[in-house]
Amino acid sequence: MKWIYIEEIANYKDQDVEIRGWVYNKRSSGKVRFILVRDGTGIIQATISSEKNDHPLFKKFDLLTQESSIILRGRVREDKRAPNGYELNIDHMEIIQIAKDYPITPKEHSTPFLMEHRHLWLRSKKQHAVLQIRAEIIKSIRDFFDGRGFLLMDTPVLTPSACEGTTTLFETKYFDQNAYLTQSGQLYNEATAMAFGKVYCFGPTFRAEKSKTRRHLMEFWMVEPEVAFAYLKDIIDLGEDLILNIIEQVIKNNQKQLDILERDTKPLENIKKPFPCIRYDDAVKLLKEKGSKIQWGDDFGSPEETLLSQIFDNPVCVTHFPAKIKAFYMQPDDERPDLVLGVDVIASEGYGEIIGGGQRIYDLKLLEQKIKEYNLPREAYEWYIDLRKYGTVPHSGFGLGIERTVAWICKLKHVRETIPFPRLLYKIYP
Amino acid sequence: MKWIYIEEIANYKDQDVEIRGWVYNKRSSGKVRFILVRDGTGIIQATISSEKNDHPLFKKFDLLTQESSIILRGRVREDKRAPNGYELNIDHMEIIQIAKDYPITPKEHSTPFLMEHRHLWLRSKKQHAVLQIRAEIIKSIRDFFDGRGFLLMDTPVLTPSACEGTTTLFETKYFDQNAYLTQSGQLYNEATAMAFGKVYCFGPTFRAEKSKTRRHLMEFWMVEPEVAFAYLKDIIDLGEDLILNIIEQVIKNNQKQLDILERDTKPLENIKKPFPCIRYDDAVKLLKEKGSKIQWGDDFGSPEETLLSQIFDNPVCVTHFPAKIKAFYMQPDDERPDLVLGVDVIASEGYGEIIGGGQRIYDLKLLEQKIKEYNLPREAYEWYIDLRKYGTVPHSGFGLGIERTVAWICKLKHVRETIPFPRLLYKIYP
Repeated sequence: MKWIYIEEIANYKDQDVEIRGWVYNKRSSGKVRFILVRDGTGIIQATISSEKNDHPLFKKFDLLTQESSIILRGRVREDKRAPNGYELNIDHMEIIQIAKDYPITPKEHSTPFLMEHRHLWLRSKKQHAVLQIRAEIIKSIRDFFDGRGFLLMDTPVLTPSACEGTTTLFETKYFDQNAYLTQSGQLYNEATAMAFGKVYCFGPTFRAEKSKTRRHLMEFWMVEPEVAFAYLKDIIDLGEDLILNIIEQVIKNNQKQLDILERDTKPLENIKKPFPCIRYDDAVKLLKEKGSKIQWGDDFGSPEETLLSQIFDNPVCVTHFPAKIKAFYMQPDDERPDLVLGVDVIASEGYGEIIGGGQRIYDLKLLEQKIKEYNLPREAYEWYIDLRKYGTVPHSGFGLGIERTVAWICKLKHVRETIPFPRLLYKIYP
Repeated sequence: MKWIYIEEIANYKDQDVEIRGWVYNKRSSGKVRFILVRDGTGIIQATISSEKNDHPLFKKFDLLTQESSIILRGRVREDKRAPNGYELNIDHMEIIQIAKDYPITPKEHSTPFLMEHRHLWLRSKKQHAVLQIRAEIIKSIRDFFDGRGFLLMDTPVLTPSACEGTTTLFETKYFDQNAYLTQSGQLYNEATAMAFGKVYCFGPTFRAEKSKTRRHLMEFWMVEPEVAFAYLKDIIDLGEDLILNIIEQVIKNNQKQLDILERDTKPLENIKKPFPCIRYDDAVKLLKEKGSKIQWGDDFGSPEETLLSQIFDNPVCVTHFPAKIKAFYMQPDDERPDLVLGVDVIASEGYGEIIGGGQRIYDLKLLEQKIKEYNLPREAYEWYIDLRKYGTVPHSGFGLGIERTVAWICKLKHVRETIPFPRLLYKIYP
């Protein structure tokens, strides 16, 4: 008999099929037994009807517990009353394993308990919805860049030098030298952008930050486009298009998951281009008016990002940051060289920064001077300096954090649910 | 004026456009100057014609060197004689930078020299072709799994325990404990497969092997599908479909790149399903007949893989390996418990293993026993053992190495050219 997945059930109306899966729930009603079976692609109601109380399938039914693994055979019936419009009238059940004392029951559990059992928690409905949306977001991002002629260029995780400071790096021995886990593929992207014009990298990045906030993971995925000959305004435009495309694709393809999460999508649907764009100077003023203690020259922390996020309905772009709070490679503003042509995009609804990027320094002398100023080891950056020697051009790019984007789109309180196995401060199990 | 990419040039016939790029080559012929300009998406011939030897654009032309960065404006003309059928008659040239002494000239360079200049070598035609094929292969793989209902589940790089032995691990401090860079997402895939039925992970993996062969990188990308309720034969079938799909997509979409690489695609086009499938026992016999010194019980090394690869026109599947040369989680054969239900797929034309996988142990007691036998720290595997407590089912999966696949499809001698910034023994720069 044909083994099918529950997501295909509508194609098999009135046919006999086999379903392989796990018991999600069960109940009895008179002479009928109902088993809710999940197979990872959906949940279907399997039914056993008999006039006889000692029907062999009733006996098997009695043994079933939550998450027991079973193989069922039966006929697919359309039934308006069934949870997804179809049910399976079974005449055969093979029990592979009766699960004993499955730790996650329908009752409420604490988050630390669920995180300890993350490998099992993944089986629950809400986690399913979040991770399905995550997969869709990733696919929509890749399709977006592939469709616009960007070439995927995987950048290395193991790097000999630090991109954004050394205090938050994971270090490892690389045979006879030290290596660090990448915090960003950007520097390498700049090399591939000079070769291919428009590129993106998309992989895991690492920050050994002693941060225990709802927005920080030690290991997180980031997509980073980089465009030769692009200026600040061009990549703001690109970032807006990317975000709008993510929203559009998720709303189009994940209505079911959004419903499970009870996500009101109106605030997302109302987002329009162009996003409000303010300079750091004005952002600081705005924040002070709203009661923040921020001083000009301070970097935004989570509270400032949240506050800014709440002022606007749209995501908001902040540009022209003080150079001293940003990385060495950022292009200074011609008129105000104490500022750099960077941009942070802060998501709406109280979610923080999801994009950071800007224009890169392309003048050889200026870059050499900055490397000195920031006390970076020049020999590790020789190849990066080369990019300014051999046909340097203005160029820009950004990084979008996947987990923060998923948290925002799903309206989750914490990023820890946006990746199958989150790496948190001190927490690396399971 | 509109800035366009060379790949779009055919849409702008007889229109004025702007091209931003780098000088690839130049030459003069009487009253015409030719500049081959690359912008990362293609190469176009720009022409300047004048009766006057002191034409201002001629003076600029004289300054141009290889890899100088320029912005050109002019009219797009169809011209059968031009390299790609179009040329640009320019009336404006802005020189951004004259590149001095670009290290990679059209003459031959040694591979160590080119590897030292990998950030610039990426600009050359052949490297372009390889990395464009790489991007297409990755896209074809993702589309293949997405199209078959597999859910992308990113597995962690930072792991508390080793999947395939501890001798070849990169280690790092994770706050108050040790962590290791993943060698495979498989164990985590097994958890997500129990939650979602059909999953795949796709990310960088790491092996600190002191191997200096043409098939080894310290950091390489791997795609790993895992399927609940699947047996050995099911995932061999899946692997065959995956490989055939990669070949089909690359031949369909990358003819230009394959031509640049002078890849004869006939051997790829002739590959059919099912691949020849032999047991380890028979593989050893075959190898011995061909003069190999292999003994039953030895693992295949590169020479054995190459030899096997040359016996068949198709890729070949080898199954039923001695348990003692394989990982602890492999399902023993019912009839011959000293063998495991693993499969290696060995690419054709002398290329080695590109797929390794098999059926996983799903019996709780057997897994517990194996963990003991292999001296693995049980506490690190508690979550993995849980998968056998709560609704265990037979399941199978495999990993396909991207760089080896790219090397095979492109028919390259060495995997180091299949990724933008390869990590080789002792080599982490640039």
